[in-house]
Amino acid sequence: MAAPKTAIQPTRNEDYPQWYQEVIKAADLAETSPVRGCMVIKPWGYALWENIQHNLDARFKATGHKNAYFPLFIPLSYLQREADHVEGFAKECAVVTHHRLEPDADGKLQPAGKLEEPLIVRPTSETIIGEMFSRWIESYRDLPLLINQWANVVRWEMRTRMFLRTAEFLWQEGHTAHATEQEAVEETLQMLDIYKDFAENTMAMPVITGAKSEGERFPGAVDTYSIEAMMQDGKALQSGTSHFLGQNFSKAQDISFQNDKKEVEFAWTTSWGVSTRLIGSLIMTHADDDGMVIPPRLAPSHIVIIPITFKADDPDAILNYCHKLAADLGVINYHGRSITVEIDNRDIRGGEKTWGWVKKGIPIRLEVGPRDMASDSVFMARRDKGHKEKQGVDRAEFIQSVTVILDDMQQGLFDRALARREEATKTIDSKEDFYNHFEGEGTGFVYAHFCGDPALEDEIKTDLKVTLRCIPLVGHDEEGTCIFSGKPSKQRVLWAKSY
Amino acid sequence: MAAPKTAIQPTRNEDYPQWYQEVIKAADLAETSPVRGCMVIKPWGYALWENIQHNLDARFKATGHKNAYFPLFIPLSYLQREADHVEGFAKECAVVTHHRLEPDADGKLQPAGKLEEPLIVRPTSETIIGEMFSRWIESYRDLPLLINQWANVVRWEMRTRMFLRTAEFLWQEGHTAHATEQEAVEETLQMLDIYKDFAENTMAMPVITGAKSEGERFPGAVDTYSIEAMMQDGKALQSGTSHFLGQNFSKAQDISFQNDKKEVEFAWTTSWGVSTRLIGSLIMTHADDDGMVIPPRLAPSHIVIIPITFKADDPDAILNYCHKLAADLGVINYHGRSITVEIDNRDIRGGEKTWGWVKKGIPIRLEVGPRDMASDSVFMARRDKGHKEKQGVDRAEFIQSVTVILDDMQQGLFDRALARREEATKTIDSKEDFYNHFEGEGTGFVYAHFCGDPALEDEIKTDLKVTLRCIPLVGHDEEGTCIFSGKPSKQRVLWAKSY
Repeated sequence: MAAPKTAIQPTRNEDYPQWYQEVIKAADLAETSPVRGCMVIKPWGYALWENIQHNLDARFKATGHKNAYFPLFIPLSYLQREADHVEGFAKECAVVTHHRLEPDADGKLQPAGKLEEPLIVRPTSETIIGEMFSRWIESYRDLPLLINQWANVVRWEMRTRMFLRTAEFLWQEGHTAHATEQEAVEETLQMLDIYKDFAENTMAMPVITGAKSEGERFPGAVDTYSIEAMMQDGKALQSGTSHFLGQNFSKAQDISFQNDKKEVEFAWTTSWGVSTRLIGSLIMTHADDDGMVIPPRLAPSHIVIIPITFKADDPDAILNYCHKLAADLGVINYHGRSITVEIDNRDIRGGEKTWGWVKKGIPIRLEVGPRDMASDSVFMARRDKGHKEKQGVDRAEFIQSVTVILDDMQQGLFDRALARREEATKTIDSKEDFYNHFEGEGTGFVYAHFCGDPALEDEIKTDLKVTLRCIPLVGHDEEGTCIFSGKPSKQRVLWAKSY
Repeated sequence: MAAPKTAIQPTRNEDYPQWYQEVIKAADLAETSPVRGCMVIKPWGYALWENIQHNLDARFKATGHKNAYFPLFIPLSYLQREADHVEGFAKECAVVTHHRLEPDADGKLQPAGKLEEPLIVRPTSETIIGEMFSRWIESYRDLPLLINQWANVVRWEMRTRMFLRTAEFLWQEGHTAHATEQEAVEETLQMLDIYKDFAENTMAMPVITGAKSEGERFPGAVDTYSIEAMMQDGKALQSGTSHFLGQNFSKAQDISFQNDKKEVEFAWTTSWGVSTRLIGSLIMTHADDDGMVIPPRLAPSHIVIIPITFKADDPDAILNYCHKLAADLGVINYHGRSITVEIDNRDIRGGEKTWGWVKKGIPIRLEVGPRDMASDSVFMARRDKGHKEKQGVDRAEFIQSVTVILDDMQQGLFDRALARREEATKTIDSKEDFYNHFEGEGTGFVYAHFCGDPALEDEIKTDLKVTLRCIPLVGHDEEGTCIFSGKPSKQRVLWAKSY
């Protein structure tokens, strides 16, 4: 049997959605579970999430936020307090109605102990956290209140896809309350900036920041901002959101405070979140037809060392050499973490082993055989290069340059993703061109003038499955004429098909 | 109004259960939520949990375990696969029966979209993780499989108490599968040892390790081991458990593998966990009548610096001095973390501020006023000493000795807890003495010979509310005669009233 040309079948070009599923499987990141719409996050995928958590958590703490934990369940009456909010989540939520199981006449266990009030498994925690904020906040001295929660949430989506859209997912949700509108808006934008910086500098994923149109806002928000990334199929993926909630939730939940003039005011609140969806965007930004590609700053392990012992007179000497090398690398700090090294001495075929690590996307693969050891060198392959581009490197030199190599990969991955996005981004100045561009399989990012009419936005969505991704915060701000209505437009906005 | 003698009212002697609630409130660790039996873990309490997590997580990883994440929901049919297991959890579980909300005729939202099969919010994950293990394990080469999960779980307890017993709680659950019985037993005991080491060296809480009697075992386990700590009221608190599950779950869930002789065998499995209950045991081990006392190795912050500026000519100079001191302390490593310092410059009364930190249990409080700054020194108070025992210390000397001071506190807290336990531990050799000891308000640990008869164990529980806490693994192993039945006893076992 001839070896397949690529490790992942089908390739991106052949069948992009299937390729995505196959990468997840080949890299052992996650798999579907017996529970409808819920996935199991496997160790290699969960380690990505842990690294995302550690990195973001440090950024949240450095900006004065503190972690806390609130109940999984939300009483139905709480969800109803903000009208748009309940409307947004009622159609897809898990409802707890009973608190025990009892055998029926046939001995089959049935729900029993009906609750007086149904409980909703949190789809997000504005209402329950708002209730606690209303108890905690009395005076302007209690503000700002800056809280974050790492938690699981449930949204009963009918069509699910691993990492991108699952019934249960893991996320962080920040919730803050402020004395003034300006401070709350600044917080909203600060967190958007943190998400952008994290996406670009840690995930090596370029993003566009902007405001959502009315129809795409979070239920109950005054303004929703997002970071939008382009996947390799030219579709947009919303990868993080930050909401300015105005006084909508504080009025609905009586989050009020006495100002320094002893007058009672409602607080201004925000919320912001990213989820395990980021792992979906990471895959679709960097993975290739040989599997996962992980930017070094998020890699669960940076380097795998494969001892090549089958021709060796003294296999133990090679193994010792590898362990010594791993120990030397392990004391090197790389962006706040030690360099993490795996030694893969499993008793399986060399090709299977090598391809296993390629598919997992480990940044650097080292092979050490008798001749390498004799010349005090290693054979190195970088995951961002072709898999045949191996090179012999002096051991000491490799140790000395490893952080430079990793940073070079990190930057290279960002540059590649940015070039791909720029390549697939257009400015379009007529409705006809716009429709021609997106009709059928057309994708990519398009900047076009728009008057802001929600009815037009709906029409475009129905016609082309294209949505207004965001009103960019930076650039594209020259005034013009809406290409759909001919009315005045304040700036070009970003359009794309999306996940 | 005269100042109260202690910051916490009532004191431990006056009303121990109420004292516990008041400490939690005064230290701002947690509070009850509007959701029955669920608590909100506030930032100071959650930071304790984060430190517990970081410390244990490193220990789990160092012993080869990897983190993963499994679904929140368990299909009812899965829970039923192991008979004892479902029996153990059916009476207190949250049941999801619907997946959306719809308005009824009156416009009131009601559960809708009934699920074909009810889902149980996980009370523990043996069954769902077992299902995945049965898919992942094919050959002896896949073993051992060493997985841990950090997650929330729900047990619908009717009588709840913050941290000790809540409907929802946070925990970790380790789940492992092994090729041999011996290896699984060794894993069970290894994890028990890790819990003991963590309890004693990180939490400064002495514990007894041992096996549970049949009636106290985890539903479905062959053997359950626990760490048992003594609280200040002389009652035992089970603070962590490690279960040898034999082949009960692997047979119920078909977790089988091909051994190196190509024969199919069932795997041997274990599970082990600790939860936010540890924070309850931490409070009841160390807190006093002035509030929380936190062992330095778990403290969210080690030191608070309080600038005393009200009499100062140049308040900014004092504040700068404090910031410089905080920066100097912040670069010192203490057991894997940097020394964490708070500067409390809030505009509130000095007494209120000082007592706030005493009640929160921060290990070291420093005060810096004009005279201290002039003499380049600080006023130091240790939380483990009387709150009037402040002393002036040279600044440089303090910086140099801070880790020694913290370690001295850590050891002191352990020694105090151990002495308290030894003081309240007895060996009893007759049924009459045993009953006299425990009747009414009698507490403490008692070692007594026991034949192992479950009926007798039940009788003792009914008569005295005393349970067999564990059959100790170390010491107490001389043979003798059961003080209740006169039958032979292999060793003395540990009895106590408990939480």
